[in-house]
Amino acid sequence: MNHPFPLSRLSILGAGLIGGSVALAARRLALCRELVLYSREPEKETVRAAGIADLVTDDPADAVRKAELVVVALPIAAMGAILHAIRGALEPKAIVTDTASVKLPAMQLLQENLEGRARWVGSHPMSGGERSGFAFARSNLFEGAVAILTPPETADREALALVEAFWLALGCRVVHLPASEHDRRVAAVSHLPHLLAAALVCSMDSEALEVAGPGFRDVTRIAAASPEMWNEILLANRENVLLALRSFLARLEEASESLRDGTSSAVKNLLREASQRRLSFDQRPS
Amino acid sequence: MNHPFPLSRLSILGAGLIGGSVALAARRLALCRELVLYSREPEKETVRAAGIADLVTDDPADAVRKAELVVVALPIAAMGAILHAIRGALEPKAIVTDTASVKLPAMQLLQENLEGRARWVGSHPMSGGERSGFAFARSNLFEGAVAILTPPETADREALALVEAFWLALGCRVVHLPASEHDRRVAAVSHLPHLLAAALVCSMDSEALEVAGPGFRDVTRIAAASPEMWNEILLANRENVLLALRSFLARLEEASESLRDGTSSAVKNLLREASQRRLSFDQRPS
Repeated sequence: MNHPFPLSRLSILGAGLIGGSVALAARRLALCRELVLYSREPEKETVRAAGIADLVTDDPADAVRKAELVVVALPIAAMGAILHAIRGALEPKAIVTDTASVKLPAMQLLQENLEGRARWVGSHPMSGGERSGFAFARSNLFEGAVAILTPPETADREALALVEAFWLALGCRVVHLPASEHDRRVAAVSHLPHLLAAALVCSMDSEALEVAGPGFRDVTRIAAASPEMWNEILLANRENVLLALRSFLARLEEASESLRDGTSSAVKNLLREASQRRLSFDQRPS
Repeated sequence: MNHPFPLSRLSILGAGLIGGSVALAARRLALCRELVLYSREPEKETVRAAGIADLVTDDPADAVRKAELVVVALPIAAMGAILHAIRGALEPKAIVTDTASVKLPAMQLLQENLEGRARWVGSHPMSGGERSGFAFARSNLFEGAVAILTPPETADREALALVEAFWLALGCRVVHLPASEHDRRVAAVSHLPHLLAAALVCSMDSEALEVAGPGFRDVTRIAAASPEMWNEILLANRENVLLALRSFLARLEEASESLRDGTSSAVKNLLREASQRRLSFDQRPS
């Protein structure tokens, strides 16, 4: 397992921003000899025209035949049916990973469909952006990103090593977490911020928007992202999002009480702590 | 007034990020023949060493003598004393503007100190960033930014025209607003977002922070900014910030109730509206 690349065949199911970027990166880095993409109309022809895959097919079972590694880069709502469709076509030695943003439900779907058929490890590359779709895919999307691996309790060592080597090769820093801990942390750093940005954008009138500057632009950038995708993510991880929200509201309430009273101590403490924490985040090694 | 530049002498009081950037831009664009900067230790020597000003002084009265235009780029807490110190030294025809982020208190200080002594117009260039100080100043800081002008009720037409021409020359889009309306809008698009970003950064544990990605980085960037400066801003504009907060919490509550119930309609509506509004913000002419 020291030199797993190039894989004989890599299959990527879903050619959106994440799947498309995995495909572009794997090609650029020569991580596989053959690359197969599962994509459906209307995007399939665009993906085919990009010329990066040996085969682009809308039949998921065809897409995974003879694959050493299968990367499922689909919304959770689509994952169950696709995993069911591929289970009979997978090689017994195939290794499967996914890229879903909420890992407990994704791991459950992998387990239900693949137990006894293939080996799997959950993955979540913390990358992406406010644009979705193959048109925005790029081969350097994962450089410097954190990829969180969520192995099942009975994780196969070889499967874990291959999936880790894959994300490392794409330029990620790899972290291993239980799925539940992944979901808790990601609710705080990704899902709740999205909800807050959306509520903020919707809470102001268009006259205020007219004078918005760079602070607003950065704070709310993620709010432009696909509402369908984020609705699914927020609902799939709602318990953790609500816990993170409670913690956020508690800090906000301390500060807003202090503002209401016209005393500054709680506001100043909050701003100081935030500034220190945010500056040390910028200084962390990538 | 069609060609007010170069001014014979421009004085900038305060050489932090904003004052320093105004100075660099005015020099690059040759908006003045003489440039004078008021700066205090410990920054004064750095500012002097930058070699952009004809005079760098820590005496505010000296700094404004013979100036056609004076730009006060100081924290509100420092403005009163400095305006008081310069009032006797201003030319009768001098025009004064400031760059404070909260305009009602700034306009009051200008009025109290300059009435009958000089003409003034409030300004707020919606630019800046998470870094403060002369070291981060740059001559293109204002390119594409919105500069909000808040003329007093009895604004002098020539003063307004000069200050507008100045920000336009620096690359700003200029908007005129009453100070109270400025403070209301800016609370929504700048001050509240800052408070939310700070509360968000402080609401999560360091384990969650470890896995944060680009979404978190953008949402919370402004939280790294100077706590002292932002504490002053939030307190100076607290009534508007609290109103904007109420409106934000109302939208957030609709969505979080819907999440709690596991129904998606309010979440989906919020995300859709946010995405549309944010995309149209990106498409606005600059």
